[in-house]
Amino acid sequence: MSTDPAEKIKPFSHLFPSMVPRTPDIGAGDKASFGDTTKKQGLQLQTPIINHGVDYVIVFRYPVKTSNNRLQMEQQVMYGLQSLTTKLARAQLFFEVKQGQERGTLLILVGCPQSRLYKEYKTERNRDFLLGISMDSPDFALNTDASNSSEKSSLRHGFTEADRLRLIYDILTSPENTGGADISPHVDPFVDSIMPLHNDDFNKKWISTWSKKWIINDDDLWNIRNHFGEKIAFYFAFLQFYFLWLAIPAGLGVLVYFTHSNTLSIWYSLSVLAWGIAFTEMWKRKQMELAVRWGVHNCSKHEKRRAAFKGDTTVADQVTGEEMPFVPAWKIVLRRGLTIPGVALGAVFLLVIVASVFTLQLFLHEYYTGPFHKILHYAPTVGYVLLIPTMSGVYSKWVRLLTNWEMHKTETSWEYNYTQKIFVANFLVGYLSLFFIAWIYIPFGDHVLPYLNEFNISHDHQKVDFQRLQDQLVYFVVTGQIVGFLTEMVVPYLMSWLMPKAKQLSAKVIHSGSSTANGDNNQEETTDISTSSTGDAEFIKKINREVGLEEYNIYTDYVEMVIQFGYVSMFSPVWPLTALCCIANNWVELRSDAVKICKYTRRPAPLRAESIGPWLRNMETIVWLSSITMGSFAYLFHPTTNLHSSHVPLYTLLAILLSEHLFAAFRLAIHAIISVIPDWSDLMIKKEDYKIKQNWLQRLDKAQGNLARQDEGRSLEDDPMAKIWCGDVDVGARTDVGMEFIRNQFKSS
Amino acid sequence: MSTDPAEKIKPFSHLFPSMVPRTPDIGAGDKASFGDTTKKQGLQLQTPIINHGVDYVIVFRYPVKTSNNRLQMEQQVMYGLQSLTTKLARAQLFFEVKQGQERGTLLILVGCPQSRLYKEYKTERNRDFLLGISMDSPDFALNTDASNSSEKSSLRHGFTEADRLRLIYDILTSPENTGGADISPHVDPFVDSIMPLHNDDFNKKWISTWSKKWIINDDDLWNIRNHFGEKIAFYFAFLQFYFLWLAIPAGLGVLVYFTHSNTLSIWYSLSVLAWGIAFTEMWKRKQMELAVRWGVHNCSKHEKRRAAFKGDTTVADQVTGEEMPFVPAWKIVLRRGLTIPGVALGAVFLLVIVASVFTLQLFLHEYYTGPFHKILHYAPTVGYVLLIPTMSGVYSKWVRLLTNWEMHKTETSWEYNYTQKIFVANFLVGYLSLFFIAWIYIPFGDHVLPYLNEFNISHDHQKVDFQRLQDQLVYFVVTGQIVGFLTEMVVPYLMSWLMPKAKQLSAKVIHSGSSTANGDNNQEETTDISTSSTGDAEFIKKINREVGLEEYNIYTDYVEMVIQFGYVSMFSPVWPLTALCCIANNWVELRSDAVKICKYTRRPAPLRAESIGPWLRNMETIVWLSSITMGSFAYLFHPTTNLHSSHVPLYTLLAILLSEHLFAAFRLAIHAIISVIPDWSDLMIKKEDYKIKQNWLQRLDKAQGNLARQDEGRSLEDDPMAKIWCGDVDVGARTDVGMEFIRNQFKSS
Repeated sequence: MSTDPAEKIKPFSHLFPSMVPRTPDIGAGDKASFGDTTKKQGLQLQTPIINHGVDYVIVFRYPVKTSNNRLQMEQQVMYGLQSLTTKLARAQLFFEVKQGQERGTLLILVGCPQSRLYKEYKTERNRDFLLGISMDSPDFALNTDASNSSEKSSLRHGFTEADRLRLIYDILTSPENTGGADISPHVDPFVDSIMPLHNDDFNKKWISTWSKKWIINDDDLWNIRNHFGEKIAFYFAFLQFYFLWLAIPAGLGVLVYFTHSNTLSIWYSLSVLAWGIAFTEMWKRKQMELAVRWGVHNCSKHEKRRAAFKGDTTVADQVTGEEMPFVPAWKIVLRRGLTIPGVALGAVFLLVIVASVFTLQLFLHEYYTGPFHKILHYAPTVGYVLLIPTMSGVYSKWVRLLTNWEMHKTETSWEYNYTQKIFVANFLVGYLSLFFIAWIYIPFGDHVLPYLNEFNISHDHQKVDFQRLQDQLVYFVVTGQIVGFLTEMVVPYLMSWLMPKAKQLSAKVIHSGSSTANGDNNQEETTDISTSSTGDAEFIKKINREVGLEEYNIYTDYVEMVIQFGYVSMFSPVWPLTALCCIANNWVELRSDAVKICKYTRRPAPLRAESIGPWLRNMETIVWLSSITMGSFAYLFHPTTNLHSSHVPLYTLLAILLSEHLFAAFRLAIHAIISVIPDWSDLMIKKEDYKIKQNWLQRLDKAQGNLARQDEGRSLEDDPMAKIWCGDVDVGARTDVGMEFIRNQFKSS
Repeated sequence: MSTDPAEKIKPFSHLFPSMVPRTPDIGAGDKASFGDTTKKQGLQLQTPIINHGVDYVIVFRYPVKTSNNRLQMEQQVMYGLQSLTTKLARAQLFFEVKQGQERGTLLILVGCPQSRLYKEYKTERNRDFLLGISMDSPDFALNTDASNSSEKSSLRHGFTEADRLRLIYDILTSPENTGGADISPHVDPFVDSIMPLHNDDFNKKWISTWSKKWIINDDDLWNIRNHFGEKIAFYFAFLQFYFLWLAIPAGLGVLVYFTHSNTLSIWYSLSVLAWGIAFTEMWKRKQMELAVRWGVHNCSKHEKRRAAFKGDTTVADQVTGEEMPFVPAWKIVLRRGLTIPGVALGAVFLLVIVASVFTLQLFLHEYYTGPFHKILHYAPTVGYVLLIPTMSGVYSKWVRLLTNWEMHKTETSWEYNYTQKIFVANFLVGYLSLFFIAWIYIPFGDHVLPYLNEFNISHDHQKVDFQRLQDQLVYFVVTGQIVGFLTEMVVPYLMSWLMPKAKQLSAKVIHSGSSTANGDNNQEETTDISTSSTGDAEFIKKINREVGLEEYNIYTDYVEMVIQFGYVSMFSPVWPLTALCCIANNWVELRSDAVKICKYTRRPAPLRAESIGPWLRNMETIVWLSSITMGSFAYLFHPTTNLHSSHVPLYTLLAILLSEHLFAAFRLAIHAIISVIPDWSDLMIKKEDYKIKQNWLQRLDKAQGNLARQDEGRSLEDDPMAKIWCGDVDVGARTDVGMEFIRNQFKSS
C-alpha cells in the first residue's frame, strides 16, 4: 500500500519500510561516511531514519487489578503519566502514547528533533574536551584538519546510529538541570523500562555475514560499535580475541593429549600459566587500542552518575562546579561494610547447595551400586542444570538489592561492585567441586573411606580419583557448555515459537480496548495515528514483540567466558583437550550471542566504554590462582607422589609457594618482553594530542603576536647581562685569550 | 674599593659584592614574586644578578706533560677550545676565557643574554604544552588569569634562579639543531665539566635557618626547589618525609624494647611491615603532590636525550617529527643482555670481599681468643670502613662504564639503569652479613662447629647467635652511621682545611704563567679583565675554589637513606631501637647534607624531576623482602623453636609463605584505605586543566560563532524528525490519549 498515491499524509504513513532510507551495506556503511563528507555530516548529524523515527520506547506499566481504592490508583497512574510526558516535553522530545499489548501497559514512543540532538552533541563534545576525554573541542572537529585526520574524534567515523541513540539516551536519563528528562526506570513511578528498537535490516545483515565467515575481523567489530555502541562491541571484541588466543593451549593440549597418557605434564602446566599471563597482558593492549580506534579512550573520566542515587544533600562538584548529590562518606563506608556479610550469606547459601549436589553426585558415582544406579547417575546433572542456575539467579537478585543499597554515585562503580558480587557466585558454582576433588577428596579420600564403606582398594582408588577430577572437568567443559548453549538458544527459540498462541489470546482483549480508545482519540485529535492503519499496525506489532522480550544482560555473557577461561588456565593440564572444546564452543558462542541479541533480547541502549571493566581483574585473579592449582596438581598427581605419606599437605604447600614465585617471575619477564613491543595506541594518542595542540598554537598566533613584539623589543642595549659582559666584543678576540694561555703553558712546561 | 669613584668601568669592576643586587630573604623571596607582579616577571624573566653575571663555568682540562709530539697536542687543544667557543657563540652566549689554578686547565665563564634566555623559555613552554606536560601555553601564562591562579605554571611562582640556570643548562647541552650549544663533558674533547657557581648568600642563609629550626617545612623545600631545582628538592623532601614517618616505628620500638626482654615480638614485626607498606604508598602521594605544587607534574614526558647517545642513523620522531638519533632495537637489547653478566661479575667480586671480611670478623668475635684479640676485634671494622667503600667505589665506576655502553637514548633511562646497578652493590654491602647470620650461621652454625673447634656449648651458643645478629645490626645502625657521618662531613672539612697549603704552592706556579698571559692580553685587547683587579681576583678565587670541589652525587645520598630504610623495615624487630637511631641520624643528615652541598661539593646544575625515580621501586622491593625476613625470624627466633630439629628449613619456608601472603593482604587493605582519602594533587590537576580549557573555549568563541549561527538555522521546519512527528501538535493532547487508555482500562477491569 506504500504505492497508493491517494494516501493522505499522516505521521507514520509515509514511512513504510519500502520508503524508509536504508542503512548502507555493512562494512561499506562506515567507509561511506569517511573523508570530506565528515564535516557536513558532523554538522547535520544525519543518520538514516529507522523505525519510523521512533528512537526509544518507554514501557509504562501500572497495576490494573488493585482490589482497594482503584480510583486513587487511577489518579496516581494518571499523575505518573502526566509528569512523565511533561518531563519529555521539557526536554524538547517528541512523544506518542500507545497502548501496550498486555493490560496495564502503555508504550510511550519517543523521538528526538535534530536541533535537540545537535545541542546534546555539542554539550557532550564540550564536556569531553573539558574533562580531557578528547583534546578535540567541538569547533575543532569542524574547522581543523588536525581533527579530521584524528583517530579520536568520533566525527572521524561519521555520526553513527549508536551515537544518535546514546545521545538521546543521555537526554532521557540525565538530570533536568543539564537539560535532560531525568527519567529512569523503577525510580519514576510506573516507568518499567526505556528501550530502543532493533534495526531489523542491520540485524539480518549482521547474522548472515557472521554465519558465513570464519573469522570476525576489526571491520565487523567496527560495525557493532557503530550500531550497538562500544560496550557491546567490547564484549564481542574480547570474545573474538580470546577465541583466537585459545588456539595456543588448544594446539599444545592436543599434542600433550597424544604424547602423555593419563599423567599431568609439568611443562604443559607451565606453558598454560605463561599463556594466561600473556593473554591478559596482551588483552590490556588490544583493549587500549580499540578504545583509541573507537574514540572512547579516557571516556570513563566522565562518570555518568546514577539517577537512582539521590544524596542527602547536594554540593558543588570540585572540578566542574555543577551541583552534585552528596552523601557523607561514613554512611557509604558503613553500608559497603554491612553488605559484606550479606554477600557472604548468599555465598554460603550457594556453597551449601553446590556442595550438597556435588557430594550426592560423588556418592552415586563412587559408592552407590543399588537399584536404578544407572538412572540415578544423572540425578546430579539434573541438579546442576535446574537447581543451581535458579539458585544463582536468586543470588544475583539478592546481590543486586545489596548493591543498590550501597548507594553508588556512578553507574561505573555500581556495575563494578555488582559484577564482583555475581562473580563470587559463578566462581563457586564453576570451580568448587573441582577444588573439592583435587584438594580434599583425592588426598584425604581414603582417610575417610574406613568410616564410609567396607571396600578399600587404595591403589586402584587413587587411580579412580585422578580420573574423577578429569571426569568432573570434562563434564563442565563438554556437557556444561552444551547445556548452556541449549538454555541460551534453543529454549528462547521454543518460547518465541510458543508465544504466538499466547499473543493471539491477549491480542483480542486489546483490540476491543484499543478500538474504543481510537474512537475517542479521533474525536479528540485528528492528527493522531489510527491503530487500524496496516503499515502502522505492522510497526506496532514489532514494538510489542520487542517489548515482550527480556533485556539483554551482558554480565551473564562475560561470566560465561571468564569462568571458561578459568577452566583452561586453572585446570586444563588435568584434561589437555579442555582448550580445544572451549575453542569450538566459542566459535558457536560468537554467532549465537549475535543471534541472541538480535532475536531473543531487546536492543540494548548503546553506552560508551573503554574496557571490559572488572572482568580483566577477575581474569588476572584467576591466573594467579592457576599458579596455585598448577603447583599443587604438579605435586599431588605426580606418579612418584605417595598420597599416603603424612608430608603431603606440607609438600603441597611448598609446591604452591614455589609456583607462586614462578608465577611472579613469569609475569615480570612477560611484562618486560611486551614492553619492548612499541605500543601503537600510546603512540597514536601522543601523536593526536600533539597535532591538535600544534594546531591550537597556530590559532592562538594573534594572542602570541604581542609576545613576539616584546621579543623584538629585546636588543642587547637594554639587556642587563649585555652591560656586564659588554656583549659587543668579538668572539675571536676572547678565544685568542685562551689560545694565549695554552701556548704559554705548553711553552713553560 | 667599590667606593672608589675614579674607577674606570670594566666588565666585572662594577660588580663587587657590595653592589650586586642580593637575593631576597629566604621565604620572603618567593612570596615577593607572587601576585600581580608575576605577569611582568614572566615577561622580564628577571632574577637578581649573582656571581657577577657568570651563570656557568666550563672546566677545560688538557694534558700538558705529553712526552711525545707536544706540538700536535697543542694543536688539538687549541682546536678543541676553538670549536668550543664557536659553539658558545653560535648559541648566542657570552663567554670569557680564564686560566685555571692547576696547570692545563682553562675556565670558560659563560653568561646568557636575557633575550636568548627568553627564547629558550618560550621554546620550553611551548614544548611542555605540546607534550602535555602543562596545559598552559606561553601566551596563556601571560594573558589569562586562569593560569595565574594556576598551581602548575611555573610563572605562578615567579621565575626562579633554578629556572634560569636550568634553561641555560639546556642551551649549553641541547643539540645544535634546536639552537643549543651541544656541549657535553667527556664527549667534547677536553671539556671536563659544566658547573654553575654557588650563591653564597643563599647558602649562608639556608644553613643558618636549618640549623636553627627543628622541622623542615614545605616553605624550606620550596626554597631549595627555587634555588637548586626539583631534583635536589625531591631528595630533601623525601628525607624529611621519611624522617617524620620514622617516628612511628621509633615510638613502637622503644615500647617493645622495654616490654619484651630479648625476644622478638610478632606484633611489632607485623606493625613494621604495615608501616613499610603505608610509608611507600603515602610517599607516592606526597611525591605527586609536590610535583604538582612545583609545576613539574608530567615533566618526565619530555625525556632529555643523552648527548652521549649518538645513534647509527637519525630518524624523525613519530610524535614531534624532529630528527632523532636511532639505533636498531636488537643492538640495544643485545648490549643490555650482555651487561647482565657484567653486573653479576661485579656483584660476585663484591660478594666475595664482603663475605670474607665478614667471616673474618665472625671468626675473631666468636672463636679467636689468641693474643691481641682485643685489638684484632676492630680489624674487620677497619675492613668495613676502608676496604669495602673503596671496592664499591670501584664497582660503581665499573657499572657506570657498563651503563654507558648500554646506549641509553634518554638521561632518565640511563639514570634508572645506573641506579639499579649501584643498588645491587649497596644491597650486598648493607645486608649480606645480616642474611648470612640469620639464615645460615644461626640455624646451621652448630652443624659446622664440630668441624671447626672443640668448644660446643650448644644452648649458650644459640643464645649468642641471636645476640650476634643484634650486634651486627647495632653495628650497622650505630657505628656504621657515625662512620658515615665522619667520612661525609669531617673528612672533607679537614681536606678543605689542609687544602690552602697545597693551594699556596700551586698558586705561585700559576701567577708566573698568568701574569705573562695578561701581559699579552692587554696588548691584544683592552676590554679584557686584568686578573690583578682585586675584586675580580676575589671572584676568581671563589671560582677556583669551587672548581676544586668534587661534583655532588645524589645517588650516594639516596642509597644511604634507602639502605637505612631496609634496616628499619627488614631488621628492626631484631633490635627495636633501630628506628630511633635512624631518626637521630636523619635529623643530622638533613643538615649535614645541606652543608655538604653548600661547602664540600660543586653546585649541581638544576634539573626537573617529578619523583625520586627508581628509589621508590627499590623501597617497595625491600618492603616485600621484609615480609620474608619477618616471617623467617618470627619462626627461627621464637623461644619455642628448637633449631636442632630437621624440620627447621621446611617450617621456615612455610613461615615465609604465610607472611608473604600476609604482606599481599596488607598491601591490598592499605591500598583500599588510602584510596578512601581524597587525593589532593589529583583534584588540583583536574581543576587546573578544567579551568584552563574552559578559558580556551571562551577564547575560541569566535571560531564557535559559526556553529552558533548554524544552530539558529535549525528550526523545526527543516527538521526531518519534525516532519515525521508533526512537532507542532500540543503536548497536552498527546498526553490525553494516554489518559484515555488508562481510564478505559480501569473502567473495563
